[in-house]
Amino acid sequence: MLEVWQEKLEKLKANKLFELFVIAIIIFSALLIGAHTYEGESSFISAEMMGVLEVLDFGVTLFFLAEILIRFLAEKNKKDFFKSGWNIFDTLVVTVSLIPLEQANMVILARLIRIFRVLRMVSIIPELRMLLNSLLKALPQLGYVMLLMFIIFYIYAAIGSTLFEKINPGLWGNISIAMLTLFRVMTFEDWTDVMYETMEHPDGSPLSWIYYLTFIFFTTFAFLNMVIGIVVNVMEEERSKLYVEEHPNEPDLATLQQEIRELKALLLETHQHKQIRG
Amino acid sequence: MLEVWQEKLEKLKANKLFELFVIAIIIFSALLIGAHTYEGESSFISAEMMGVLEVLDFGVTLFFLAEILIRFLAEKNKKDFFKSGWNIFDTLVVTVSLIPLEQANMVILARLIRIFRVLRMVSIIPELRMLLNSLLKALPQLGYVMLLMFIIFYIYAAIGSTLFEKINPGLWGNISIAMLTLFRVMTFEDWTDVMYETMEHPDGSPLSWIYYLTFIFFTTFAFLNMVIGIVVNVMEEERSKLYVEEHPNEPDLATLQQEIRELKALLLETHQHKQIRG
Amino acid sequence: MLEVWQEKLEKLKANKLFELFVIAIIIFSALLIGAHTYEGESSFISAEMMGVLEVLDFGVTLFFLAEILIRFLAEKNKKDFFKSGWNIFDTLVVTVSLIPLEQANMVILARLIRIFRVLRMVSIIPELRMLLNSLLKALPQLGYVMLLMFIIFYIYAAIGSTLFEKINPGLWGNISIAMLTLFRVMTFEDWTDVMYETMEHPDGSPLSWIYYLTFIFFTTFAFLNMVIGIVVNVMEEERSKLYVEEHPNEPDLATLQQEIRELKALLLETHQHKQIRG
Amino acid sequence: MLEVWQEKLEKLKANKLFELFVIAIIIFSALLIGAHTYEGESSFISAEMMGVLEVLDFGVTLFFLAEILIRFLAEKNKKDFFKSGWNIFDTLVVTVSLIPLEQANMVILARLIRIFRVLRMVSIIPELRMLLNSLLKALPQLGYVMLLMFIIFYIYAAIGSTLFEKINPGLWGNISIAMLTLFRVMTFEDWTDVMYETMEHPDGSPLSWIYYLTFIFFTTFAFLNMVIGIVVNVMEEERSKLYVEEHPNEPDLATLQQEIRELKALLLETHQHKQIRG
Repeated sequence: MLEVWQEKLEKLKANKLFELFVIAIIIFSALLIGAHTYEGESSFISAEMMGVLEVLDFGVTLFFLAEILIRFLAEKNKKDFFKSGWNIFDTLVVTVSLIPLEQANMVILARLIRIFRVLRMVSIIPELRMLLNSLLKALPQLGYVMLLMFIIFYIYAAIGSTLFEKINPGLWGNISIAMLTLFRVMTFEDWTDVMYETMEHPDGSPLSWIYYLTFIFFTTFAFLNMVIGIVVNVMEEERSKLYVEEHPNEPDLATLQQEIRELKALLLETHQHKQIRG
Repeated sequence: MLEVWQEKLEKLKANKLFELFVIAIIIFSALLIGAHTYEGESSFISAEMMGVLEVLDFGVTLFFLAEILIRFLAEKNKKDFFKSGWNIFDTLVVTVSLIPLEQANMVILARLIRIFRVLRMVSIIPELRMLLNSLLKALPQLGYVMLLMFIIFYIYAAIGSTLFEKINPGLWGNISIAMLTLFRVMTFEDWTDVMYETMEHPDGSPLSWIYYLTFIFFTTFAFLNMVIGIVVNVMEEERSKLYVEEHPNEPDLATLQQEIRELKALLLETHQHKQIRG
Repeated sequence: MLEVWQEKLEKLKANKLFELFVIAIIIFSALLIGAHTYEGESSFISAEMMGVLEVLDFGVTLFFLAEILIRFLAEKNKKDFFKSGWNIFDTLVVTVSLIPLEQANMVILARLIRIFRVLRMVSIIPELRMLLNSLLKALPQLGYVMLLMFIIFYIYAAIGSTLFEKINPGLWGNISIAMLTLFRVMTFEDWTDVMYETMEHPDGSPLSWIYYLTFIFFTTFAFLNMVIGIVVNVMEEERSKLYVEEHPNEPDLATLQQEIRELKALLLETHQHKQIRG
Repeated sequence: MLEVWQEKLEKLKANKLFELFVIAIIIFSALLIGAHTYEGESSFISAEMMGVLEVLDFGVTLFFLAEILIRFLAEKNKKDFFKSGWNIFDTLVVTVSLIPLEQANMVILARLIRIFRVLRMVSIIPELRMLLNSLLKALPQLGYVMLLMFIIFYIYAAIGSTLFEKINPGLWGNISIAMLTLFRVMTFEDWTDVMYETMEHPDGSPLSWIYYLTFIFFTTFAFLNMVIGIVVNVMEEERSKLYVEEHPNEPDLATLQQEIRELKALLLETHQHKQIRG
């Protein structure tokens, strides 16, 4: 009997209308979350409306549970279901959403979990899934550039917190704070305020601009390299993909060379045959 | 009789001098709009001059009406005229410009409509039109990246307005304000002020830098991907276009292979013919 | 007799050592200009030293005059000398440097002219000349994108100075000031201060963020398009140049096809010859 | 006997586990340096713990000395050891670390030297070494663009410190300060504050925006050119490398042409042979 259900659910899952319905529910759920943030502004949303939203929200949670159950049952091999990171993520979010959180201090946590439901949008729309997967695929290639950048940050933060700690402990107090300050410098966010302070302070040095300028130079250069790395990789992949698509029957030069050589061998044979006969 | 007019107008429309004249009028109209903004500064433009500008402005409106009518009448199939988005846009702007707006509170609206006339520059100069069309063509390709970015913004705004609402309602009051604040963070505009506030406030957390840094990381990464997407697309198109232009008679490798095979067949034929004879 | 001189000067001009000497003088002249800016700080450069610098400065001017005269006389066709923009620029700068400027109010002007002498560095070092020429070559290609950007700026500035003039005349007083403010917004420089003011002011509107966000979107998009345009152009040129350099004797596919066809014609001839004989 | 040691050390050096152990020690040393920056915050790290850290730190220094000695002895040709910039760098850092620095004013210097030890991470991990080498390789190509940018900075700084010195000596006092201010303008960091000051000051000019906008235009353009230069170079190298990797036996078109010509020669020979016989 389960097999009949499984078949029905598989059909439902593949149904385009069903997919659109799920997307609509997710968007509605996202709007509910957004509406929650207007809570305090009584003129915008009344208390009764808030109650209706609560009920709808619970409906959405139930729907998600059903949707995941359907997907789980529709899977032939139950183990395969948990091989996909998205399925695990979906299951986790829904499970946590079902936990009753009555205490006041838990309200914020419950709300935050609900927000992550919006990410199910990505797991439903195939194009977004592909996009995110390709973004994640580019990450490991950048691993070493990121390690290099972390080393640059670490060294400069260590130097910064050694030299400038007394000038402004709020910015250079320890290595973690110094790294945050350096990230701020990298984004050019009021970095001159940070620099002028260390240049003008009696404990600082008028030469401390060297510290900032070399840091900006190194990180910009490393970031640039990272970006170029992604561009080159993406373009190469795209090109080879496109080339194969556009020229499905195109031989490569090695094949052509092979064919010319066969021709030559044939010709030589004819020639020798004739000479022997002649 | 209309046909004679149509022919004349078609010639006039194709006339290079006429096009230049229309461009000159548009530039003049744009300068008038610019001059209007100096209105209050009496030393710059006198009241009488302002009156002359008003008359010229009305003349420009009339000219635009005539120009559009000419273009409309020059069109053989009247329906085709409204198929072009630019024609519809031109017609709308001119029609609205003709509405008499005497009330004081309408003055600003009337002025705003006049400003959009400058956009007719784009509809007249073919190169600008091509440029804008190619920009608009690139937009749908980016649709999914933009949806992804909107989801990132929405989730972070929901989290932000949940966690930081009490700290600064002006920045995190509801989800719309929070999204605007996040856009500000993405442009690195005084984002550390926003961050330090949530880090130092008793209701905030010293760990809230994680929120900002992950947000900056995700949006920068998505934006980068978007840019690379455009670059790759534009370059591929450009290359294939250029290649065909530069090598109009260049055969592809498949054609060459075909010809080598024909040669082989011919040679084999000769060979067999000889062997039979031999 | 002038011919003998001309020959000598031509040799001198082509001399690598002479070129290095001229570069050294330009660098020295640039350092003098830099030293001048320390004038007020008496502890750094004494009054006597300043006098020595003045004399050296005059010597440098004389040297430049001689150098240009040599270049001019070394030119066989005197008209060709003024065909190069660099020569005209050099002549102008030296001529103006020789004008005696004794009045106090002219001192700044005289100094500014001297600064431009540093640009002669570019006219002397061939690699910099090539670099600058290639930058200038890329400019016209971008002409239409810049026109489009100017139109966007103009329209937004007209709207901005119409809507926000009363809120802050220092930022939106007239169309020129508004364009400068918009350039500031485009560089993300304290743009939120500008935006929040128009959102919170009673004469403004809480919806004015639409104005800023659409403007940022349009200009970023146009700028991106411009950058990609340059990248594509430069890469295409570079590639075709590189390809020709690396493969100087490489035939194109059309040539190969031609050779295969000749082979076929030859084979067909043999075949027919034989059949006739046979 | 040294030869036996050398062989053993060579094996140890090539050992993967030994490499991992060295990396672990470097990371531990880096963490020690980071922990040092929390020194003042007594609640975080106690005085006793600090003492333990000191001992561990000395142990790390000794380990580094041993590691370098091993590497030095493992080298067959002792001169080759100092040909690598990394080896020289490692030796220098360790040697300096061993100098006893007891005086209070030397503490900061000693600490700074220790920080550079983290860079040995790069010299140990081969991938980071390759990455940094490739970054350094790209630098000379950019030499002329950087010279051009320096000239632009120098000219604008000279103009700026001439025109704006009286307005704000802290920003335009002399050419070095002016160059720093211009770097700030290039990073768009509160550049409008700098600009508005010179526009509104009685000694300044309302037209001084021209100075800033042209500067931003030139530097952005030069920077863009630099970035594109790197992208083009990296991509070309990457492509040719990839092409050779993917098509190891692929002939070029010139080879194919050569083979077709040999075929033709052979055919012509046969033809002539026959005609003579015939």
